[in-house]
Amino acid sequence: MTAPLRTGLSSLMSPYEQTRQLSERLASVYSEADQTIQSMPDASPVKWHLAHTSWFFETFLLKPNLENYRVFHPSYEYLFNSYYNSVGDQYYRPNRGLISRPGKEEVLAYRQRVDLGMAELLATLEFDDRKDLQTLVQLGLAHEQQHQELLVTDIQHALSFNPMHPVITKAPDLFPEATELQWISIGEDLYEIGSDTAGFCFDNETPKHKVYVHSFSAANRLTTNREYIAFIESGGYDDPLLWLSEGWAWKSEQQIRAPLYWKSQDGEWWHYSLSGYHPVDLNAPVTHVSYFEATAFAQWAGYRLLTEFEWEVLARLHPNIHEQYDPGILRPQPLKNANDDIQLFNQLWQWTGSQYLPYPGFKIPQGAVGEYNGKFMSNQFVLRGGSCVTPPMHIRATYRNFFPATARWQYSGIRIAHDG
Amino acid sequence: MTAPLRTGLSSLMSPYEQTRQLSERLASVYSEADQTIQSMPDASPVKWHLAHTSWFFETFLLKPNLENYRVFHPSYEYLFNSYYNSVGDQYYRPNRGLISRPGKEEVLAYRQRVDLGMAELLATLEFDDRKDLQTLVQLGLAHEQQHQELLVTDIQHALSFNPMHPVITKAPDLFPEATELQWISIGEDLYEIGSDTAGFCFDNETPKHKVYVHSFSAANRLTTNREYIAFIESGGYDDPLLWLSEGWAWKSEQQIRAPLYWKSQDGEWWHYSLSGYHPVDLNAPVTHVSYFEATAFAQWAGYRLLTEFEWEVLARLHPNIHEQYDPGILRPQPLKNANDDIQLFNQLWQWTGSQYLPYPGFKIPQGAVGEYNGKFMSNQFVLRGGSCVTPPMHIRATYRNFFPATARWQYSGIRIAHDG
Amino acid sequence: MTAPLRTGLSSLMSPYEQTRQLSERLASVYSEADQTIQSMPDASPVKWHLAHTSWFFETFLLKPNLENYRVFHPSYEYLFNSYYNSVGDQYYRPNRGLISRPGKEEVLAYRQRVDLGMAELLATLEFDDRKDLQTLVQLGLAHEQQHQELLVTDIQHALSFNPMHPVITKAPDLFPEATELQWISIGEDLYEIGSDTAGFCFDNETPKHKVYVHSFSAANRLTTNREYIAFIESGGYDDPLLWLSEGWAWKSEQQIRAPLYWKSQDGEWWHYSLSGYHPVDLNAPVTHVSYFEATAFAQWAGYRLLTEFEWEVLARLHPNIHEQYDPGILRPQPLKNANDDIQLFNQLWQWTGSQYLPYPGFKIPQGAVGEYNGKFMSNQFVLRGGSCVTPPMHIRATYRNFFPATARWQYSGIRIAHDG
Amino acid sequence: MTAPLRTGLSSLMSPYEQTRQLSERLASVYSEADQTIQSMPDASPVKWHLAHTSWFFETFLLKPNLENYRVFHPSYEYLFNSYYNSVGDQYYRPNRGLISRPGKEEVLAYRQRVDLGMAELLATLEFDDRKDLQTLVQLGLAHEQQHQELLVTDIQHALSFNPMHPVITKAPDLFPEATELQWISIGEDLYEIGSDTAGFCFDNETPKHKVYVHSFSAANRLTTNREYIAFIESGGYDDPLLWLSEGWAWKSEQQIRAPLYWKSQDGEWWHYSLSGYHPVDLNAPVTHVSYFEATAFAQWAGYRLLTEFEWEVLARLHPNIHEQYDPGILRPQPLKNANDDIQLFNQLWQWTGSQYLPYPGFKIPQGAVGEYNGKFMSNQFVLRGGSCVTPPMHIRATYRNFFPATARWQYSGIRIAHDG
Repeated sequence: MTAPLRTGLSSLMSPYEQTRQLSERLASVYSEADQTIQSMPDASPVKWHLAHTSWFFETFLLKPNLENYRVFHPSYEYLFNSYYNSVGDQYYRPNRGLISRPGKEEVLAYRQRVDLGMAELLATLEFDDRKDLQTLVQLGLAHEQQHQELLVTDIQHALSFNPMHPVITKAPDLFPEATELQWISIGEDLYEIGSDTAGFCFDNETPKHKVYVHSFSAANRLTTNREYIAFIESGGYDDPLLWLSEGWAWKSEQQIRAPLYWKSQDGEWWHYSLSGYHPVDLNAPVTHVSYFEATAFAQWAGYRLLTEFEWEVLARLHPNIHEQYDPGILRPQPLKNANDDIQLFNQLWQWTGSQYLPYPGFKIPQGAVGEYNGKFMSNQFVLRGGSCVTPPMHIRATYRNFFPATARWQYSGIRIAHDG
Repeated sequence: MTAPLRTGLSSLMSPYEQTRQLSERLASVYSEADQTIQSMPDASPVKWHLAHTSWFFETFLLKPNLENYRVFHPSYEYLFNSYYNSVGDQYYRPNRGLISRPGKEEVLAYRQRVDLGMAELLATLEFDDRKDLQTLVQLGLAHEQQHQELLVTDIQHALSFNPMHPVITKAPDLFPEATELQWISIGEDLYEIGSDTAGFCFDNETPKHKVYVHSFSAANRLTTNREYIAFIESGGYDDPLLWLSEGWAWKSEQQIRAPLYWKSQDGEWWHYSLSGYHPVDLNAPVTHVSYFEATAFAQWAGYRLLTEFEWEVLARLHPNIHEQYDPGILRPQPLKNANDDIQLFNQLWQWTGSQYLPYPGFKIPQGAVGEYNGKFMSNQFVLRGGSCVTPPMHIRATYRNFFPATARWQYSGIRIAHDG
Repeated sequence: MTAPLRTGLSSLMSPYEQTRQLSERLASVYSEADQTIQSMPDASPVKWHLAHTSWFFETFLLKPNLENYRVFHPSYEYLFNSYYNSVGDQYYRPNRGLISRPGKEEVLAYRQRVDLGMAELLATLEFDDRKDLQTLVQLGLAHEQQHQELLVTDIQHALSFNPMHPVITKAPDLFPEATELQWISIGEDLYEIGSDTAGFCFDNETPKHKVYVHSFSAANRLTTNREYIAFIESGGYDDPLLWLSEGWAWKSEQQIRAPLYWKSQDGEWWHYSLSGYHPVDLNAPVTHVSYFEATAFAQWAGYRLLTEFEWEVLARLHPNIHEQYDPGILRPQPLKNANDDIQLFNQLWQWTGSQYLPYPGFKIPQGAVGEYNGKFMSNQFVLRGGSCVTPPMHIRATYRNFFPATARWQYSGIRIAHDG
Repeated sequence: MTAPLRTGLSSLMSPYEQTRQLSERLASVYSEADQTIQSMPDASPVKWHLAHTSWFFETFLLKPNLENYRVFHPSYEYLFNSYYNSVGDQYYRPNRGLISRPGKEEVLAYRQRVDLGMAELLATLEFDDRKDLQTLVQLGLAHEQQHQELLVTDIQHALSFNPMHPVITKAPDLFPEATELQWISIGEDLYEIGSDTAGFCFDNETPKHKVYVHSFSAANRLTTNREYIAFIESGGYDDPLLWLSEGWAWKSEQQIRAPLYWKSQDGEWWHYSLSGYHPVDLNAPVTHVSYFEATAFAQWAGYRLLTEFEWEVLARLHPNIHEQYDPGILRPQPLKNANDDIQLFNQLWQWTGSQYLPYPGFKIPQGAVGEYNGKFMSNQFVLRGGSCVTPPMHIRATYRNFFPATARWQYSGIRIAHDG
């Protein structure tokens, strides 16, 4: 969000409305029942995402700042608090799929009430001196955009359990034959990593600091399904020497033999997505792989993953962003104008070999929003780049996404690299 | 179902319609989202009950017997098969709450199609010689009635997780002060147990056979909440000597301190039911207790539970049945004309001290319906009497209900007894 | 224990010494390390059995009755209390294999101290009027004998995890070709069940009471390994219609394909026992099967198991007991003088179709020994007959053993039966 | 191991003998039963450590290189392989406590055989050109030293389950009053991290590479028990804002309220160690804390942990190592000549804020020893410094130890730090 900001908070009204509307548009294609279900503790119901993002504005903006604001429903403060202990107790996460009430319509009414409050707050106050509120609104929007992505990946996970393979969106175009992989080499040097933009970024992208990066080469494109199938067929899932020890144990215990949503049928690989059940597109980038699978593939291929610092250096040197986000498709699709096609952004999140840790000088902010990022800084790996379902505002070189090494339900893929 | 049956199967049309309509009436008060959720593997969504009972008729009656019957949807055969291995694979039971599709309307359309087929089957055929089909239709209706009860207890369980305490039905009347408990004594003798009625009964009620019952005395009424609270307050949940060993371990592990749905609030006991969140009615019979709690209470009081044979002997000697079933209440309520009020039927299922085993001479029927009862004859206890949510057709002296010793979400209560 | 008892407790000295010596003899063939290990929560280390049986005498006889008796070690009261809540807390059962100290020698010293105390107690007191102590001593001996059996089955379970297949005892003789199965028919009648002997029996065998038993026929011998292999080879483990529902789930979850300790090797079945790793003797009775496997086999064969009442009636009519107990063998072996060879006793415990419940009129005794039997009366099945490792004092028609339906590490086998 | 090496492998004979003898000396104070038990999957029996370290030499040195070497026992290759998939299958790790056989004496015989073989290998060959074998022997010795430390921490964990608090070693001296904490400041710069020594180091310490370290200050001493108790008493275990999210969940689930082995007794903290059960020494450094506890404490105190790079820079600038290793004590104890007492080495492993990842340019070695380190590089945190039970050869600035964030049974402590 690097656009210059007008002085009043009213300049935030338009982005606010656009973001809120997109959430509802994304949700609108799912039935009341679809919006209710939850398929694992890590995922949340569609309806819950709509309510929780409203709870965020109600809790951090309206309650403390809008005079006479009356909370929509006292139980919502409990039901739709995700993990903010400083705000209060939270409904037990694995049970979010039991919240049949409020229904879809009541959640939309909740959103409307919050939107009215926010319109009043943004319109009536003059507060050049309230940078803090401006930042909180921006955080609320960025937060809602993150949930727009989760809404999509969570409902795809839930619907994947339905043997009738529900079709929600249209299918993407087939990818053209993948080009031969080329290496982009970057020289050893001291680089600056992280953000110091005047615009919005998450606290975990700061402070900007120096990192010494040794020379490396990165693949110019993502690993394709064809390449990944070669790994499968050469016994990649059966060779413990390719795997991290923890990954081997996880794979064996979970009996994993292919990316999430894949199924072998009569000698061919099929997969489920929100556009239905189709044969795997061999030229498309492989997705829905865990960090453990990504590293096993890289080891098998004789390479490794990038670190998050290498990735960021690469991205700064190749700043072209092809914005392709299309809420009607929700699958990786070929880039339209791919002159500089290194697929950094907007196709798949790329697992890096870096665990998610604070940057030097990082401080957890005071107050409830201090719980936003810092407390998750253990045992997760950083992903970079943004995917086909990532809202465009989240596409930037410094953005740090993070998930446990076993997570597969995000649009996560592989970029290989090597030293020197 | 002891009424004389007309010769044609068309005589079953009226009971068929009444049963099917009651299921839909019971379901109709729940929203689409309510009908979708599942709160534990043992419970099923409302919508699933509606579909599964239709699957039963489709699978066992229509497919084999109605010419040109076309299956409504091939996936339904898999989704709505509960546990009939001889029919085919089953959707993983703990995931029934993920079946957002088919929605409520599609399930009702499924029911209509099955009803049309059944109407045709029942109307057009003449089959005095198809007693087997007649029995199957009766079994299908009895099966659907069992699911009517489960539908209610399952949704109560699911809605109990909602902090907003949804109110579905009106509250029952308060019970009058409980009368002093009196003992009904029965002499030692050889009794006949089980059913040989010409009408319908379940296979597990047969064959009728002789059981020697030693003299015993049974309480004339069920244990009340007041009595149970005395047990709690005297430390009943903390004294291992009152408990079966397995029950003590279960209670400790689950941190159970009171009946299901109870909560202590400012020194008073409250509980949730489909009529909302209310103070416990001290004169009402205690319900939602496990077998383990029932036996601990009886041990504490210096008594024991009845065996299922003692219960049946008692019921044959006190045959008055006060039919009180009211789908608008769904809670135990005072009997209206209780001259002979020994509360045998229609208030609460009563845990007996008998594990669920086959009667002498019992044979598992051939074919898929052989999976109906026999395969559950291990590690469950028999309950007798029927509850406030049990359809009237299931109220009889020989009826055997059964649940694991830890089950609490049924309307299960306590009748104490002693030897001699 | 039906022998007439002398008036003083000193008459118990000889049985006391014999029982205590046998325990030590049984344990003596195992190394210090063997005596320490525990392979599952249900099993205990050899050393623990030696200590716990001494704890029983110390706690229930010496501490309350022997003046000046000083407890051997205060921690032992906690470590070696099995499940007597009325005595005090217990060391966490699954951790018994962590009790490296006391070592074997210290446990033997503990036994000696207890034996000295018991000798003093039994010798010096005159107490015709202390029938209660006499009963307690007998209970302590019966208790120790039960643990002699468990000691053997528990260590066999533990050693079965050792890939070197430790050999402890000599191998049994091979069984001769099994005779053709014959049926013993018993007529319908009112029978007396249970014990009212003047000698010792467990409380769960009482009171003697009447049971109406319908006519039935019982196999004259146990099911052989050859017969059980036919069940396996015909797909018995893959046909859900043969299994109780809970048994099918257990078998599938545990991936069970054969009796415990069996392994298929080059097309032949081998099994481990304390005499080592050998091919299965096709003519020997099949053992180490669960109740679920026993019922699946019986269902496959077209038969059922006996109830415990049928079994007892059968045993009273065939009272010949071939005592074959040999602590040097510890495996089923052919009976030497088998003129009336119906293999009722001393070969294998026989699963009955009866769940373990109190007899009519059963009362849990007051005091700590009230925890001996009664609190286990849920969700277990009764086994009858005694096995090759059951001490002879426990071989009688009324004896009730009991284990959960999944237990396989006891010497448990199958006798089939049918109605009429 | 920086001493110059003689040309022949015979120069390794003396370190070999010393290392092997120390293992046996460490084990010798435990009984046969002590040496057999295993208290959690992450820990191994004493006896197993003795056997596994011998297996390492047998497998990687003797079998491939010593002509006519005959494997001691074929089952040992399976029983004592820890995690080398390229060598073969492994005995199920959580069951190591079931290996009663081989006994202690047989394991010592195994060690002797291996020692004879190693003596022959080291003595008879001339192999200036076999640097690979030299490295393997050094790796084998370093490996055995690591297991010497684990042997101690594992048996302490196992014996902690014994209510009799076994005393194995003498108690350490009490610590003097802790000095006021002072900060050591280090300036921002590009530093060299890792090892390029001609002597032995582990592969994970290489390659030496450049890291840009921002200015920071480190505490000159470790956090004391007194300081940690202040954290406990101020509610540190109850404030979610101090904890990483995963740590809070772990702490709550495990009901953790204090360091491992601590128990509150009459208002005082006591703890168990191999020198018995004693009051906590308030001036001693706090140990047996997890990463999650270490970070919560640091957050509470207003500080953070060092990164592993900061720690290494600090250690290079303060190279004084006070070697205090004493196998007769096995507890932190005051340093004797502590002029420069910054307690870097030989007291406690210090959790760093760095997850365990490969250094730039790290390659997993070919062959089985490639499984030594690299495959564990996910979801563990690095610890630095070595503890009171770490053999001296492992005390160096570049050494990287690593454990999951929940591990507490190592001698792990806290050094706080801050930016700038």
